[in-house]
Amino acid sequence: MANSEKKISKAVIRRLPIYLMYLEELENKNVKGISSKKLGEMTGFTPSQIRQDLNNFGGFGQQGYGYSVNSLKNEIGSILGYGKNKKGIIIGGGKLGKALASYERFKYVGLEVVDIFDRNPDNIGTEIGGITIRDVSELEQYVKNNKVDVGILTIPKESAQEYTDLLVENGARGIWNFASTEVKVPEGVVVENVRLNDSLSVLMYYLDN
Amino acid sequence: MANSEKKISKAVIRRLPIYLMYLEELENKNVKGISSKKLGEMTGFTPSQIRQDLNNFGGFGQQGYGYSVNSLKNEIGSILGYGKNKKGIIIGGGKLGKALASYERFKYVGLEVVDIFDRNPDNIGTEIGGITIRDVSELEQYVKNNKVDVGILTIPKESAQEYTDLLVENGARGIWNFASTEVKVPEGVVVENVRLNDSLSVLMYYLDN
Repeated sequence: MANSEKKISKAVIRRLPIYLMYLEELENKNVKGISSKKLGEMTGFTPSQIRQDLNNFGGFGQQGYGYSVNSLKNEIGSILGYGKNKKGIIIGGGKLGKALASYERFKYVGLEVVDIFDRNPDNIGTEIGGITIRDVSELEQYVKNNKVDVGILTIPKESAQEYTDLLVENGARGIWNFASTEVKVPEGVVVENVRLNDSLSVLMYYLDN
Repeated sequence: MANSEKKISKAVIRRLPIYLMYLEELENKNVKGISSKKLGEMTGFTPSQIRQDLNNFGGFGQQGYGYSVNSLKNEIGSILGYGKNKKGIIIGGGKLGKALASYERFKYVGLEVVDIFDRNPDNIGTEIGGITIRDVSELEQYVKNNKVDVGILTIPKESAQEYTDLLVENGARGIWNFASTEVKVPEGVVVENVRLNDSLSVLMYYLDN
């Protein structure tokens, strides 16, 4: 795979899940093959953009036939690193943390949420989807003793950096950040922010403009 | 305000909530004034980008002093349309819908979530934050009788388009879409997608690349 030989731009990586979403929809509709032209119409990207993106990883298409929906879906999943059995923990057992605890996509991508931490005594000890919420005061000891690849932060922004540091210092390589603040991490650690506030703000703006 | 006279690019609008986030943090720390240089260091945008963005709306800064944190925060909130008393409903009273029902930012931006709809009999009739979940089969009648500005979709992707159509045909002007699919809307209606799946995929990719 060309993947390991050259650096793929972030813009390409961000388009891959979008292709994947449409491929999954096509597969659900039992569509077997798709042209870059048709995929372009669905996604809004140009066919040449799509071909160029996929060529970064070796292509996958056949001249005159296009792409096999199932193969391309699997290839993109594999490029994205699905199925590698990573471990994640959720910090913040409030409503959003609880909602994410049963997020079905985790299993699909190969991220297992193994534990949830909270500081609220009302939440500690309660169970969500088979996981008992732990006291966040145990977190430091926990991350020293257990491998955690990804920390999922559903906590107020005031404590986001503190828990990020704790996770990263103990080996976490990824932060999925739902707190409405930026967190700083050393090189080699990835942060993905889900900016609900920003998205809502943009929506509010365009309601009247 | 220049706002109504010319079209502001989407990229500018998307940066406004980011400026706002930092201004709120500064205000919480009791910082009164900030230069575009300092704001640039915090946000990662260049000072000239920031000045250029804000000049679209009239500027707000003072040569040699910079920006008043509180005024700029309020100005950006006002540009974004905060506080205009819009009505929203949540379609999907599952875990994510329940989590969003108590999302504090709604009140802050001026979007009131007035009702929640679900099709699951176990959810219908239960109460979240003072709102009793209604049967989604009542939705059509409801949107004909009640003004709804924004529909918040936390439903499986299969039904996202159907409910979008129903909402839009009955006057909704905005869709906040958490379903992992695209929904089509006529011109003049805004859709903001929160793509959890995509964000998670990008995170998974960069864990190993």
